[in-house]
Amino acid sequence: MSDEEDFLNRKKEAVGKLREAEEEGEIDKKILPLLKLINNSDDYYTSSSCAGRIVLLQIPSIGDKRNAVFLGKWHRKVSVEEILSTSEKASEGLLWILAQSPIVHVICKELMDADEMVKVGLSCGFKNSGFKSVSGKKVVELCSTERLDMPVGRDGEIFCDREHLSLLVEISNDVMEKGEEKLSRLEEGLKKKF
Amino acid sequence: MSDEEDFLNRKKEAVGKLREAEEEGEIDKKILPLLKLINNSDDYYTSSSCAGRIVLLQIPSIGDKRNAVFLGKWHRKVSVEEILSTSEKASEGLLWILAQSPIVHVICKELMDADEMVKVGLSCGFKNSGFKSVSGKKVVELCSTERLDMPVGRDGEIFCDREHLSLLVEISNDVMEKGEEKLSRLEEGLKKKF
Repeated sequence: MSDEEDFLNRKKEAVGKLREAEEEGEIDKKILPLLKLINNSDDYYTSSSCAGRIVLLQIPSIGDKRNAVFLGKWHRKVSVEEILSTSEKASEGLLWILAQSPIVHVICKELMDADEMVKVGLSCGFKNSGFKSVSGKKVVELCSTERLDMPVGRDGEIFCDREHLSLLVEISNDVMEKGEEKLSRLEEGLKKKF
Repeated sequence: MSDEEDFLNRKKEAVGKLREAEEEGEIDKKILPLLKLINNSDDYYTSSSCAGRIVLLQIPSIGDKRNAVFLGKWHRKVSVEEILSTSEKASEGLLWILAQSPIVHVICKELMDADEMVKVGLSCGFKNSGFKSVSGKKVVELCSTERLDMPVGRDGEIFCDREHLSLLVEISNDVMEKGEEKLSRLEEGLKKKF
């Protein structure tokens, strides 16, 4: 099989999976137009991507990420009340709040296409963009630098007082807002390119 | 000038700068043997790299990273007392504690060399490694996933009580410890390769 055939086969499979996930309502609507735009181009397709999220996570002990449990996951802004009521599910271990910027994975036909995609990403505010793999599958990761990773409690108890928790929520929500803006900029940037 | 001459000229300059920085005592001793090992190989040289650090940062307002001020910076484990006494320098704005894993930038002669370097990085625990640039200068970034980005106070006041701050310091110190282990693994991994 030629590289081009291989690319087209893998693309067909990935686009099919995305459609299934869309039908199941598993894809965040905020990122779907961007993913479709990329998949409608000849030289690219997307794999696992996220519009950005706020997460309340329980980890049994320091560093034991494998056994982390998602107590709450929001692809939007949250309120202090939501964090507090969700934290009632916490039992043993460390409680973390994470705010994560959007992340978009793009598989590119040629290395030159990958180079172009990284340039567009960087110019649209995805300052932490780069290439994950360049031999065989050419995979580009577009991501941004805004984030929050903070242990906020232990064994079911939140250590932050209300003022502190408000600050964390405010900053997490700002990460969501900036992420949405950057996804829009990226969509506009790619519309000009394609 | 050929690509090879260009590579060698840039390498000479980079190695010279590293030597100067070493003489000024500006390079963390924990990372120096690794950087020298890479620079002694034919196909690679290093640029800005860091052994990992814990930082106490003041940011005027949410997102205004350009005007961030480093109140404290440690390339080692810290104590709660150090964080508390350094936070006395804080005045206006948001106070963050960051714990950052090692980051190593390697410029590679050929794309194939870059591919090899990323593979070694990934196999030595630098799970977030990839290529920052592949056309012209081939730049690889080796970095790990452990990190903390924690807003801990505002306008000179730390919001965390002692128990919470102890937890943050404990986890930050764990990031430093894991970072050191990974630097050692990378050094061993590269010794086998070169």
